[in-house]
Amino acid sequence: MQISELSDRSGLTVQTIKFYIREGLLPKGSAVSATRSEYDGRHLERLRLISALREVGDLPVSAIQQIIAAIEDDRVSLHDLFATTQHAIGPHVAAPHDPHWRAAREDVDALVRELGWDVGDRAPARDLLAHTFVALRRLGFPITLRDLRPYVNAARDVAEHEIGRVAAGTPRARTVHSLLVSTVLYEQVLTALHRLAQEDASSRRFGKS
Amino acid sequence: MQISELSDRSGLTVQTIKFYIREGLLPKGSAVSATRSEYDGRHLERLRLISALREVGDLPVSAIQQIIAAIEDDRVSLHDLFATTQHAIGPHVAAPHDPHWRAAREDVDALVRELGWDVGDRAPARDLLAHTFVALRRLGFPITLRDLRPYVNAARDVAEHEIGRVAAGTPRARTVHSLLVSTVLYEQVLTALHRLAQEDASSRRFGKS
Repeated sequence: MQISELSDRSGLTVQTIKFYIREGLLPKGSAVSATRSEYDGRHLERLRLISALREVGDLPVSAIQQIIAAIEDDRVSLHDLFATTQHAIGPHVAAPHDPHWRAAREDVDALVRELGWDVGDRAPARDLLAHTFVALRRLGFPITLRDLRPYVNAARDVAEHEIGRVAAGTPRARTVHSLLVSTVLYEQVLTALHRLAQEDASSRRFGKS
Repeated sequence: MQISELSDRSGLTVQTIKFYIREGLLPKGSAVSATRSEYDGRHLERLRLISALREVGDLPVSAIQQIIAAIEDDRVSLHDLFATTQHAIGPHVAAPHDPHWRAAREDVDALVRELGWDVGDRAPARDLLAHTFVALRRLGFPITLRDLRPYVNAARDVAEHEIGRVAAGTPRARTVHSLLVSTVLYEQVLTALHRLAQEDASSRRFGKS
């Protein structure tokens, strides 16, 4: 297809598509003449992925570049690709150098060890969790494994489901797609459902008060 | 205590504290002379709440103003306060006027009805969920109640726990505190644990591939 059709089918302007090509997010089409290139279904699928990461995941172009570079490098294992994605997504919480933060980060590391989870030392989610611990303690909410247990169980159930959703023998490109979607989009599905469920639970408990 | 001690204990500058007073986020201290005011533990608690909402929830001052106004108005029921908080927090997804979005929003409404959840029609989380549905479909991931079931169960379990955590007879101010913390901070706890659990599940499944 020509770039105009690619634009129609992706819902993106020709200008945006050319920008993504320049930034290395989208491979060039195959030149059929000096002024025309042909695009195919893989271009369309890539554009849809970029749109989703941009619109829903709210990721900057630089983060998408890192993810795409890892997707295109077959030597990167699926698990490493997953870790790269998480790293690109952030958020990169700036860890302050104070004793409260250090204590919280040590608690996170102890929790991960206690759960027996295989998670890289530099996973941004460790800092994200430590950051919430600091704020919760400042507000007078102590953190114990018992308080965290419902969250741990929910997170584990959902993650098992997500990884299990990738059928054995699925081609690498599709698997990558599925992992990205789990990380970026289904994370927001969980957040949205959590808020809806909270409102429902609040209504049943406090609706009359 | 004087404002300098309030500053030390809250970790906020005197300038920031004065800004919060001007913006109506923090009540004035009681004047003990023309140039000195006294502050107490409630000021400190309020400042910690504001800090948490700002730093971890990343809420703008205007959203915090809405929340504080509802907290201070005893006529607002706890459930309404909770809905106000959710509204202030957003995110306010701009709903495009296209058929895909309308279909997704109808699916969300049908899902909420099917689950029997008591959620306001204008809850921002409905739009947030619809937005993810549109993106998932665009990427070729169909949405069925079966796919959503693990997320629904996780969200419900966590929300039940959160609302149940508020002991009967807890004073209103403390209850509000607890609800806000659940919404803003524990949501991030869940997100962070979800990512850690995903990395662990990915390692077990793809670690060698």
